[in-house]
Amino acid sequence: MRVAVLTAPGHVRVEDRPDPAIVEPTDAIIRLSATCICGSDLWPYRGIDSLDEPRPMGHEYAGIVEAVGGEVRSVRPGQFVVGSFFASDNTCEICRAGYQSSCVHRQGVGGAQGQYMRVPLADGTLVATPDVPADDLVPSYLAASDVLGTGWFAAVAAQAGPGKSVAVVGDGAVGLLGVLAARQLGAERIIAMSRHASRQKLALEFGATDIVTERGDEGVARIKDLTDGLGAHSVIEAVGTQESMMQAIRSTRPGGHVGYVGVTHGVELPGVELFFSHVHLHGGPAPVRRFLPELMDLIAGRQIDPGRVFDLELPLDQAAEGYRAMDERRAIKVLLQP
Amino acid sequence: MRVAVLTAPGHVRVEDRPDPAIVEPTDAIIRLSATCICGSDLWPYRGIDSLDEPRPMGHEYAGIVEAVGGEVRSVRPGQFVVGSFFASDNTCEICRAGYQSSCVHRQGVGGAQGQYMRVPLADGTLVATPDVPADDLVPSYLAASDVLGTGWFAAVAAQAGPGKSVAVVGDGAVGLLGVLAARQLGAERIIAMSRHASRQKLALEFGATDIVTERGDEGVARIKDLTDGLGAHSVIEAVGTQESMMQAIRSTRPGGHVGYVGVTHGVELPGVELFFSHVHLHGGPAPVRRFLPELMDLIAGRQIDPGRVFDLELPLDQAAEGYRAMDERRAIKVLLQP
Repeated sequence: MRVAVLTAPGHVRVEDRPDPAIVEPTDAIIRLSATCICGSDLWPYRGIDSLDEPRPMGHEYAGIVEAVGGEVRSVRPGQFVVGSFFASDNTCEICRAGYQSSCVHRQGVGGAQGQYMRVPLADGTLVATPDVPADDLVPSYLAASDVLGTGWFAAVAAQAGPGKSVAVVGDGAVGLLGVLAARQLGAERIIAMSRHASRQKLALEFGATDIVTERGDEGVARIKDLTDGLGAHSVIEAVGTQESMMQAIRSTRPGGHVGYVGVTHGVELPGVELFFSHVHLHGGPAPVRRFLPELMDLIAGRQIDPGRVFDLELPLDQAAEGYRAMDERRAIKVLLQP
Repeated sequence: MRVAVLTAPGHVRVEDRPDPAIVEPTDAIIRLSATCICGSDLWPYRGIDSLDEPRPMGHEYAGIVEAVGGEVRSVRPGQFVVGSFFASDNTCEICRAGYQSSCVHRQGVGGAQGQYMRVPLADGTLVATPDVPADDLVPSYLAASDVLGTGWFAAVAAQAGPGKSVAVVGDGAVGLLGVLAARQLGAERIIAMSRHASRQKLALEFGATDIVTERGDEGVARIKDLTDGLGAHSVIEAVGTQESMMQAIRSTRPGGHVGYVGVTHGVELPGVELFFSHVHLHGGPAPVRRFLPELMDLIAGRQIDPGRVFDLELPLDQAAEGYRAMDERRAIKVLLQP
């Protein structure tokens, strides 16, 4: 099969590799209907995360079950399924509490930017649709696998809801889908922080009520201007840098909630400032599996259209161009057709 | 009047100073029935917090109203009152959300280790009892002013409650009253971390079900041993050092809650570890005013006895010995008789 491999920072090559096979009786093999490039893939692409050897890339997936191991009960060949970037048993106490991405049997998945992939712990990881969906819904289901689930978790962690003001730090796909989630959760005011016209436009279409173009201290001051001088009730952090984390914490009112999902890089939170900020802080790798049934229902009913974050679609063989487009911020998010 | 003054690190002297007077029409003057030394007073006493000039000490207080300004409506001379270490208007949006210690008109109070003190924003800060209470209840009311309210906030922030396992890092008065709070809130298992016999004894009397004497990584391992390998649902942090914060975070299961109230000193939280820990983090200066009515009712009804944290009682003039006893951990908490 063909799969996108990061061979060195800045170098993505689509290679032939052996098709994956069932290894454990709890595995499933999926034929990908669509796959995509994640903002977090840019960390190793940019050489910020280390790369010991060529790495098959991708952890977002939606597709048709090709085969299942002997112990798999909840999905069967021919079904269309979506899964999360962490495989989970969905039965342990941590999973039952809604933290499947910290499942005691958690396993990473990889190589999703390919034609086929192996998903461990299929019963606890995959969610099937009742029928194979229409082609035009596939991008939205694919988004549910990570960026939608992650933006949704951020909004839930930030306790976005009726009567709440929500600020969103980060205008990547996750931030934009944080806007969509906040709207779905009933937030009254949703402030997207972005200085890119195409992203501002999508934020407004997803439900943002205000756009703030300033960053850092000026951005914080603008958020306070818009929230009676107090800061937002709920702030979504979807970048992961020191600057974005501090911007999020400082944009939140005392007693408010920060939901942070940007994979943190080089972040050190100053204890004294956090202490006196009085914010609630919660985040981490999104337990997408918790939200998948609900999100897939919303997509099936065409109540949300998260697939609109894909503003560039390429054949898998052009994955390298997809990485370049995202690295240069020419594209919000790139869908790859296997 | 007489008041304890920190003249230099390690040096406390009880001096004569002018009696406080009404300055603002929202002020009240209180004659202290009892006062005490706080663990946080030890930071400047030990020279860790800076001291620019001699400082009248103390921020915990309960006593009789002597005089009120012309705009004070909710308390009157002769009433017994308890207040918090931050004065608050209790009407702003932040107060109404329960974060009075971040009130938009917040003011610090000081000089409570004396015979009289001025309390600003009396209507929003002080809570009166229906009648002047029996003398034996005064220590418990005094505890409500800070250590009980702070331990209670930590337990609430950690979401201690029925069915939950709670671990408490720190065996000072706040940690011990965090144990009491967790018990009152219905926690199932309460693990006190302490290696001091007298504190272990009081923790057990306040409702701890287990004692862990190990610290650091060994302490974390013991907490995991006691919680099915997962970590506690709720962890109270009542120290404020890097070590205690990391011990608290690492003792918490994914999806669990850390309530931190130890005033942080030199703490830098590593972003990546926090991200993957999946904990909820909330804390800061306790909004004691939120809890005072409920806590004072529990004390009036003799349902809780938080005054037992005072294991040394001295006349105000012996404040210096009180500081030494707490600094050397000979006393859990020292009550001073003005």
